Amino acid sequence: AIVEYLSAMASRDSLAGRRFVLTAGPTQEPLDPVRFLGNRSSGRMGFALAGALARAGADVDLVAGPVQLTTPPGVKRTDVQTAEEMLAAVLARLEGATGFIGVAAVADYRPVDVATHKIKKSDAVLELRLQPNPDILARVASDPRRPELVMGFAAETRDLETAARGKLAAKDLDLIAANRVGEGLAFDQPDNALEVFSADQCWTLPRQSKQLLAERLVDIIVETLDRHSTDARRS
Amino acid sequence: AIVEYLSAMASRDSLAGRRFVLTAGPTQEPLDPVRFLGNRSSGRMGFALAGALARAGADVDLVAGPVQLTTPPGVKRTDVQTAEEMLAAVLARLEGATGFIGVAAVADYRPVDVATHKIKKSDAVLELRLQPNPDILARVASDPRRPELVMGFAAETRDLETAARGKLAAKDLDLIAANRVGEGLAFDQPDNALEVFSADQCWTLPRQSKQLLAERLVDIIVETLDRHSTDARRS
Repeated sequence: AIVEYLSAMASRDSLAGRRFVLTAGPTQEPLDPVRFLGNRSSGRMGFALAGALARAGADVDLVAGPVQLTTPPGVKRTDVQTAEEMLAAVLARLEGATGFIGVAAVADYRPVDVATHKIKKSDAVLELRLQPNPDILARVASDPRRPELVMGFAAETRDLETAARGKLAAKDLDLIAANRVGEGLAFDQPDNALEVFSADQCWTLPRQSKQLLAERLVDIIVETLDRHSTDARRS
Repeated sequence: AIVEYLSAMASRDSLAGRRFVLTAGPTQEPLDPVRFLGNRSSGRMGFALAGALARAGADVDLVAGPVQLTTPPGVKRTDVQTAEEMLAAVLARLEGATGFIGVAAVADYRPVDVATHKIKKSDAVLELRLQPNPDILARVASDPRRPELVMGFAAETRDLETAARGKLAAKDLDLIAANRVGEGLAFDQPDNALEVFSADQCWTLPRQSKQLLAERLVDIIVETLDRHSTDARRS
């Protein structure tokens, strides 16, 4: 217990003076004033991580999609609806940030046309044309103001490690946390299990509350930043 | 105050021995294990009406889409996700019901194909094929077990009365409550304003809490049922 207490004390200020920009929750892409394309993200993982980073002493800017959650103490929150609004809010806060963590389940697609008035029902099959949304993680990782640490989340129904490592490399991320969707895990659940990958390391975080997972993720983030500075001193 | 108290007393048992089936909230139509087509209904109006009917002495079966709400006292609740599940739950409870009230914002369309695994993002425009969902209100109103009172809700961005009266006639409803979407009204708001239409009457309910609106709607429902029995005695 004493060791745990000391460890908690030590980590209380481990991110003091650093600022993190996080996204959390789903995005909603409107089809018309009433309907939208959405996804099952509750925002719990992102909000838990924002709170844990703030407890570790970091300044935290949280950009949140539509969720039913309370802002954790010490976290600055900005609410958005769509992927494009989320990207704009993130870019506006990127300058000088130590880390960007994309926890949000950003909608990959949005309707090509958004109707001003409610679409009337007909008996015919409707063709909805969708266009790709901006990739916020890839955009941040390739920005001239790229933070030192860029971390993504991936929800996969199969080939977890291959998919996660593929995204890590393709988007030039430092860390990716992958969770398996289904089997009662991940979306809209208080618990989750994660596999975290860097280019040359991995961490298995077994099923536990998203609050506890968030604490473990902060440890991994601190470790990764420490390693960056060690590497920098060596080179 | 005494008059209000007596009125409240009088209405406490005005629906005793009658059973109502209600739907509330949105439906969600899955595209894959993660994504869905949804809408902005919070379920508040339907839950308020279910509670008000129960306070008036009715038995209430509430079929609810995915919402973040507490079941009102005395209400039997069944949770569903899609329009097809909602229809099945309603039909299973229809026999012997005095009234059916469709407050849910049922998705008009669902994807033709539902992917078993998460759809991977590509840079191309995606064509999503949607097919019409069953019309729960029209289906109930044309059922051999049609309840004495069938009531719908309509959310419209324009031509409120024309659209509402059109639905009333086309779907063979007894009552329809119409609300204007936009201007901060209707969806995901604690307040609303309603126009209620029958074939030969209308009621304007100015902006007020959904709880108060629900009490007024119960009065209109009781009045409509009383009129039915008077008409029946006359004919």
